[in-house]
Amino acid sequence: MSEWLHDAGGAGFAHAYLIEEELYRGRSAFQEIRVIVNPEFGRMLVLDDAVQTSERDEFVYHEMLAHVPLVAHPAPRRLLIIGGGDGGLLEEALKHPLAEAVMVEIDREVVEVTRRFLPQIPGRAFDDPRTRLVIGDGIRYVSASAESFDVILVDSTDPKGPAVGLFGEAFYADVRRRLRPGGLAAVQSGSPLYQLELLRAVRAGLGKVFPVVSTYLATVPTYPGALWSFTIGATAGDPAHTPAEEVARRTAGFDLQYLTPAGFRAAFDLPPFLARDLGIAG
Amino acid sequence: MSEWLHDAGGAGFAHAYLIEEELYRGRSAFQEIRVIVNPEFGRMLVLDDAVQTSERDEFVYHEMLAHVPLVAHPAPRRLLIIGGGDGGLLEEALKHPLAEAVMVEIDREVVEVTRRFLPQIPGRAFDDPRTRLVIGDGIRYVSASAESFDVILVDSTDPKGPAVGLFGEAFYADVRRRLRPGGLAAVQSGSPLYQLELLRAVRAGLGKVFPVVSTYLATVPTYPGALWSFTIGATAGDPAHTPAEEVARRTAGFDLQYLTPAGFRAAFDLPPFLARDLGIAG
Repeated sequence: MSEWLHDAGGAGFAHAYLIEEELYRGRSAFQEIRVIVNPEFGRMLVLDDAVQTSERDEFVYHEMLAHVPLVAHPAPRRLLIIGGGDGGLLEEALKHPLAEAVMVEIDREVVEVTRRFLPQIPGRAFDDPRTRLVIGDGIRYVSASAESFDVILVDSTDPKGPAVGLFGEAFYADVRRRLRPGGLAAVQSGSPLYQLELLRAVRAGLGKVFPVVSTYLATVPTYPGALWSFTIGATAGDPAHTPAEEVARRTAGFDLQYLTPAGFRAAFDLPPFLARDLGIAG
Repeated sequence: MSEWLHDAGGAGFAHAYLIEEELYRGRSAFQEIRVIVNPEFGRMLVLDDAVQTSERDEFVYHEMLAHVPLVAHPAPRRLLIIGGGDGGLLEEALKHPLAEAVMVEIDREVVEVTRRFLPQIPGRAFDDPRTRLVIGDGIRYVSASAESFDVILVDSTDPKGPAVGLFGEAFYADVRRRLRPGGLAAVQSGSPLYQLELLRAVRAGLGKVFPVVSTYLATVPTYPGALWSFTIGATAGDPAHTPAEEVARRTAGFDLQYLTPAGFRAAFDLPPFLARDLGIAG
């Protein structure tokens, strides 16, 4: 019988993937890393049985976590990415006229495995002269560093193991301190269906250090339940109010596959069931 | 070991649901009907191993297939629903000031099982004096009937068994003939991920009899891949152009859980990967 991967989303629900081929399986100091081939989604990067990205739909998550905050900032020059070892977020971010992109990934093996088996996801991002890859603990990095950034993106796994602290208030306070005036931070904030408490905690935590907190959604087919949330903490105006014309101008030529100029604003237009769950007036 | 339901979406991909309890299992003349209980999605109606609806997320599909076309029509009075045996679509539709809603469902047992085990999905829709439930073949109904309607909604299963004809050109031509001037038809048109050929065929088929064909999306967590498409064939203007103020006015007091006034237009704003797959200019 063929083997299937079950990626759990809450109690008694999972996405199931036929493993046509397993290209890599290894255990790093932090997690089990696998690259599998699925007939529907192509090559998939799997960490501790949770699908991180796939050839078929990687663009949704990476475009939405990169371009929404980078376009919401008026002129980002210095970017920090925490996590994001597969390089897909970095590749999208580097489409913007940045001066420097620092990426702090805790697990060198995620970078190496992705570059070997899913090279089209980072593309040339790791070789871009603006990229500075730091292998290390992102929590310690934002705590100890004296650098400052316009935009900080937190591309974490679920809050398990070394990623737990990436959802904590102490981390958010350090992130806030690393931002230049007008800066903003964006984090993946989990499933609004089966991680609602997590999303609430992220919003509350960011709300303690940022005057503006704004959640937006995207549909990532390979994440359990597909509906996925991202949350921005901003030091200035509400990122949701970025005009569609500005989005179009700033992403012209990017060859985006998911985000549209009108879709930027729509992503912040939370469905009433979720706005209610989050205590946001409709 | 506990039993899981696997609802397949394309080759080697499925949504997997723990069956906490099976409340009903029977075989009608048309299909196997089950009602299961899942810890994440509550009670779920399953036809031939495909999840049709769940307590937790039924509102997404039903709101989007009911209200988008009913609001796009300037003043719908007579409605025809083909399929939709669980009554959730009918319930949403009856929030509009209709004069009559005819529902033609082929499988009486789907109606009966839903009313018994998922009564909150139809609510009082089947007892509404405006409702006329016909148990019969929807394809024959639109072919033989002399009635006319403002809006026709096709709430079908996947194109298997008796539902195959609901995706055919002959059926669409009959639907078109049953519409009054200014009328429109809306159909569930499948997954844009693993049923792309189906979606293309639906658009092409509707395009042969309607001057305007417009596809919109929603995220239905319990459908495989979650991203789901609906397609409208319209005899007059493009439904996508309905102003948000009109949507707000026409759905005021409906207590919607998914659709927002701005989300109406956004649902038609297809992501570029799909617009390209469908040959629609970006």
